[in-house]
Amino acid sequence: MAGVYVLILCDIGNTTFHFLIDGVHKKYFLNEALPDFEEPIYFVSVNENATLKLKLSCEKLIDIKDLITFKTTYVGMGLDRIIACSGYDDAIIVDAGSAITVDIMSEGEHEGGFILPGLRNFEKIYPQISSKLDFEISLKVNLDKIPLNTKDAISYSILKSIILPIKEIAKNKRVIFTGGDGKILSQYFEHSVYKEDLIFENMRGIIDANNRIA
Amino acid sequence: MAGVYVLILCDIGNTTFHFLIDGVHKKYFLNEALPDFEEPIYFVSVNENATLKLKLSCEKLIDIKDLITFKTTYVGMGLDRIIACSGYDDAIIVDAGSAITVDIMSEGEHEGGFILPGLRNFEKIYPQISSKLDFEISLKVNLDKIPLNTKDAISYSILKSIILPIKEIAKNKRVIFTGGDGKILSQYFEHSVYKEDLIFENMRGIIDANNRIA
Repeated sequence: MAGVYVLILCDIGNTTFHFLIDGVHKKYFLNEALPDFEEPIYFVSVNENATLKLKLSCEKLIDIKDLITFKTTYVGMGLDRIIACSGYDDAIIVDAGSAITVDIMSEGEHEGGFILPGLRNFEKIYPQISSKLDFEISLKVNLDKIPLNTKDAISYSILKSIILPIKEIAKNKRVIFTGGDGKILSQYFEHSVYKEDLIFENMRGIIDANNRIA
Repeated sequence: MAGVYVLILCDIGNTTFHFLIDGVHKKYFLNEALPDFEEPIYFVSVNENATLKLKLSCEKLIDIKDLITFKTTYVGMGLDRIIACSGYDDAIIVDAGSAITVDIMSEGEHEGGFILPGLRNFEKIYPQISSKLDFEISLKVNLDKIPLNTKDAISYSILKSIILPIKEIAKNKRVIFTGGDGKILSQYFEHSVYKEDLIFENMRGIIDANNRIA
């Protein structure tokens, strides 16, 4: 049986060190001082300088990248997307942030994916086309009714443009949402679940699977 | 029987005077000198200053707006959209320019519509999200296959985001495309037709209908 130990996970982004320390979230801005860590830290990073900084506070950094075995023929799939998909055999994984990545897992294999603009970035296109199209998206718009004014017309278009391509490939598969707008979008899907901590959850799964093999 | 007369139509935009003189196209930039016209000109305009300039070259300007009877409960529908829809009883009318307006005509009534970003403007969002997403759209992407690289992922997403909302409301209706990207988009629709000169064609229809009543 494994002894009691503290599991420290860290998601290193372009703004913060995001820790999950035995299930408790803790964020530090990249320029903030970090405490010293006695225990090993499992991390995922998109920021090499920040990784070097964390190295000064912890002797044992373990890059989750080195523990992953993930099969795909997709060229240029980011590590965050790979981690989000890890552990799902048959599902659609949607990470709805500044961009919305949509990935398809079938029988344990990654089949491919696509990249929609995030909700706020979608909204930002319209005023760039014409000042007459400068409206904030209304999430209350009725998607079963053809719009009868410009604000509804834009909100309807943005939501349909995001929802329909996901529905088309989802068919009867479960849709896993994460990311800032994941909760909002998950409401439009019947067989869906929103997982705020999908990355950390899957990092834990990868670590566990690796410990079982070792 | 009507006598032989020259029919002059003019679409006044923000860049050009676009004439159709007895079926022949002729464009003048707004700052170019215009010839004198003896015959009346039927026009549609989004540019009041340009309309005043045309007035100096032609004594009889007839605003097509004054000849239109168009029923809709849509608030803020532009005259170009109204003209594009005029004369269709049951059809989807898609004007694919810098924005893509989609309008639904059912049993002679306008049911509403929505506004997607134009192809090029859609493409422009991605590099604004991340420099890693700076790709030109590929119109050759296979829409029946889940993408396996970033360029395809973006092209697939843009095309699906535009095509699927139109298909959803089109059902078995005919889809009439016009505008700069209308021809490209019409290829993805079975019951569709591309009409480069939809606005002029419909202006003529409005004039004819008006002459019959008069």
